[in-house]
Amino acid sequence: MLETPNPDLDAITAELDQRHVFHSWSAQAALAPFVIAGGRGSRVWNHEGTSYLDFSSQLVNVNIGHQHPAVISAIQEQASLLATIAPATANLARGEAAKRIADRAPEGFNKVFFTNGGADANENAIRMARQFTGRDKVLSTYRSYHGNTGSAVVATGDWRRIPNEYATGHVHFFGPYAYRSDFWATTPEQESERALQHLERVILSEGPASIAAILLETIPGTAGVLLPPPGYLAGVRELATRHGIMLILDEVMCGFGRTGRWFAFDGYDVVPDLITFAKGVNSGYVPVGGVVISDPIADFFNDRVFPGGLTYSGHPLAMASIVAALDTMASEGIVENAATVGREHIGPALAALAEKHDIIGEVRGEGVFWAVELVADRATRQPVSAAVMGRIKRELVARGLLPFLADNRIHVVPPCVVTPEEVAEAMAIYDEVLSLDLI
Amino acid sequence: MLETPNPDLDAITAELDQRHVFHSWSAQAALAPFVIAGGRGSRVWNHEGTSYLDFSSQLVNVNIGHQHPAVISAIQEQASLLATIAPATANLARGEAAKRIADRAPEGFNKVFFTNGGADANENAIRMARQFTGRDKVLSTYRSYHGNTGSAVVATGDWRRIPNEYATGHVHFFGPYAYRSDFWATTPEQESERALQHLERVILSEGPASIAAILLETIPGTAGVLLPPPGYLAGVRELATRHGIMLILDEVMCGFGRTGRWFAFDGYDVVPDLITFAKGVNSGYVPVGGVVISDPIADFFNDRVFPGGLTYSGHPLAMASIVAALDTMASEGIVENAATVGREHIGPALAALAEKHDIIGEVRGEGVFWAVELVADRATRQPVSAAVMGRIKRELVARGLLPFLADNRIHVVPPCVVTPEEVAEAMAIYDEVLSLDLI
Ligand SMILES: Cc1ncc(COP(=O)(O)O)c(C=O)c1O
Ligand SMILES: Cc1ncc(COP(=O)(O)O)c(C=O)c1O
Repeated sequence: MLETPNPDLDAITAELDQRHVFHSWSAQAALAPFVIAGGRGSRVWNHEGTSYLDFSSQLVNVNIGHQHPAVISAIQEQASLLATIAPATANLARGEAAKRIADRAPEGFNKVFFTNGGADANENAIRMARQFTGRDKVLSTYRSYHGNTGSAVVATGDWRRIPNEYATGHVHFFGPYAYRSDFWATTPEQESERALQHLERVILSEGPASIAAILLETIPGTAGVLLPPPGYLAGVRELATRHGIMLILDEVMCGFGRTGRWFAFDGYDVVPDLITFAKGVNSGYVPVGGVVISDPIADFFNDRVFPGGLTYSGHPLAMASIVAALDTMASEGIVENAATVGREHIGPALAALAEKHDIIGEVRGEGVFWAVELVADRATRQPVSAAVMGRIKRELVARGLLPFLADNRIHVVPPCVVTPEEVAEAMAIYDEVLSLDLI
Repeated sequence: MLETPNPDLDAITAELDQRHVFHSWSAQAALAPFVIAGGRGSRVWNHEGTSYLDFSSQLVNVNIGHQHPAVISAIQEQASLLATIAPATANLARGEAAKRIADRAPEGFNKVFFTNGGADANENAIRMARQFTGRDKVLSTYRSYHGNTGSAVVATGDWRRIPNEYATGHVHFFGPYAYRSDFWATTPEQESERALQHLERVILSEGPASIAAILLETIPGTAGVLLPPPGYLAGVRELATRHGIMLILDEVMCGFGRTGRWFAFDGYDVVPDLITFAKGVNSGYVPVGGVVISDPIADFFNDRVFPGGLTYSGHPLAMASIVAALDTMASEGIVENAATVGREHIGPALAALAEKHDIIGEVRGEGVFWAVELVADRATRQPVSAAVMGRIKRELVARGLLPFLADNRIHVVPPCVVTPEEVAEAMAIYDEVLSLDLI
């Protein structure tokens, strides 16, 4: 699909990368440059022309697929009009994008604050909740990722928080995860009930009047696509309301189509006070994120200065890409495709793999948002080792599949535009690799 | 310059903005939408076709001017190849951009970590300094702005920090500002010497072994274009080196041409350990920022995991815009233009205004980076009131000039491509407005 394959450019890219690019969350010397030059839909390729089926959606952000022509032209057109403008001004693309997002949100959400990504979306949602409630503390779960900046990384539950604990006011609790219950529960119903009881105990012990917000990924993503059990989110909402605590739902990874719905929380009996988003809203074609604000919080800042801001808030290129991405996802039925492919193809195929391979402990998910837990032993549920995961990664890539791996899990997270044929192709690769003598 | 003026679109934009867009650092009800639809060079315009001379460079970021065709086409071309790709991969545009930046930095700076803007550039520089030194504290000045996220906003000295003090390990000190000395100094030399003595006292009192970094804007920007007096930065470097403290220079606003040099610190006798950048590097055409890392710090992370990252680190559209912006600034002599216009036109014209208008207390700056202090009384240097500044803003805008105002100052900060004719046009407007009966 490349005009002219040019392997030299792969070598040049790799060399420049090693010399000059410092990479996220890594020991730099351990990185072997993996060159990507182009893509389309669910595929990417290097300069030589080797192509890969992208079942990672990169960092689970390319919901509309790579290089959707409608979004690409919208960016190009906006670039020819106006690439950048200060946040204090008014710009048509910005108003159109904000309206599109507010229209998808529940009633009573009318305003959008734009940021550059997911981390600063969470930073600003936390800021709004603190200002609005006059309280300090933010509760979030140990199995979570909320971004890499000051407060977002301390709200994060996973290991990435630990070297970065320089923010105050954060408290962590345990969320529901039936497969590895922290509450000695044996059914999803019991997991839900006990997780709520645990949260209530934490709230009461911390002091409800000191808690500004509960920040939750609607479906914790990197932590393992942990679908909340029945009643959990409604229970959290009830606790938050009862104690005057703002509920912030982080839809950065699970929002805008990933679950087969516009927002993941649309599938649950819950409406938050603040919604944070990034990734899927424009598939990351231009860096952007933001907060959708419920009216009482937005109105609170009508006559009070909102103490937050950034140079690129509401960046025109990002805004144009949001308008095009959301309109195209609607007109091409891309969210519905995610739902259908998940239900009819990915789900059944993963269930069949689980039947066949003892290494699979559990499969869970919906839409194009699935996790496959790999275990050394089905009875004890002991996770496979990092070495096994490393081997799996190499074998998948060698067969032309770009995977998303986290801990002992394969996350099956292709773009929302993935076809049944591509799913079949990927499943054959997973099957082949899981058939190897891995442990 | 618009194809077809369309005043209706201004009304539509204003209405969408008021309904759906939540703005930075503002009480939302106080905002009157100011529509901007397009621009070129040092001018912007609305849909109706009313145009403005942009002597703000928006948020002092459009260094190459609005809509430079070379940067616009680079973005469009990269968009047609590949808009987004994960940070862990290698990409040609990313390597090229990192190399361009490293090439402009002092010897011994070879790697670049890319972020989405200035705030997260500072977050990550602080993180690197803390990891590298194994120390916690970060010293920064009261007259500073470093961004709106968790640690960056608490490193910030100005009022924006106060409602946001949720990060630990920050200590503030006073920097040099001869016109309003915090050290009872009467000459720049004395200001420099005393500011260094003050900083040394703070370092010793905090405990040098607890201090990871001193974070300074090379030239504090929003705080008033505070050119450091002779010897100050060299003195800070010496103190940092003596105590094993990392020196982070924030070049977000003053870097990449603003001063008439590539980096502002190129004009001083100082080399930092970490450089943060954003704005001018690509004039904000795509959201981006980053950290240029000196070799010892980069090497420290060869075998240790760097605990920071973000989805859009090294975003291809941003990278392509950096390559084009830096190459074009070099080939078209845009940095030299900023130096010349500053020296031969802006400086002399502002000096003439200061001669004529008693309201001007001081003029200072270089390149396209100037501040004009407005005072109610030249002897006491009492700043003019917010009401006077509001009036000045309205009168400048009414005459077709987009100003950058901060506290009691007009910052004269046009794009680096500004022409002598545009400077003359702007100066006539400033002159006319300052001739009004303002106080
Ligand atoms: C749920 C969630 N929140 C926030 C973030 C942070 O987003 P960003 O990397 O754009 O800052 C991520 C990124 O993976 C995420 O998955
Ligand atoms: C010196 C300085 N540092 C950091 C920042 C923050 O940059 P951003 O708004 O892109 O986060 C700014 C923004 O004005 C700045 O002037």
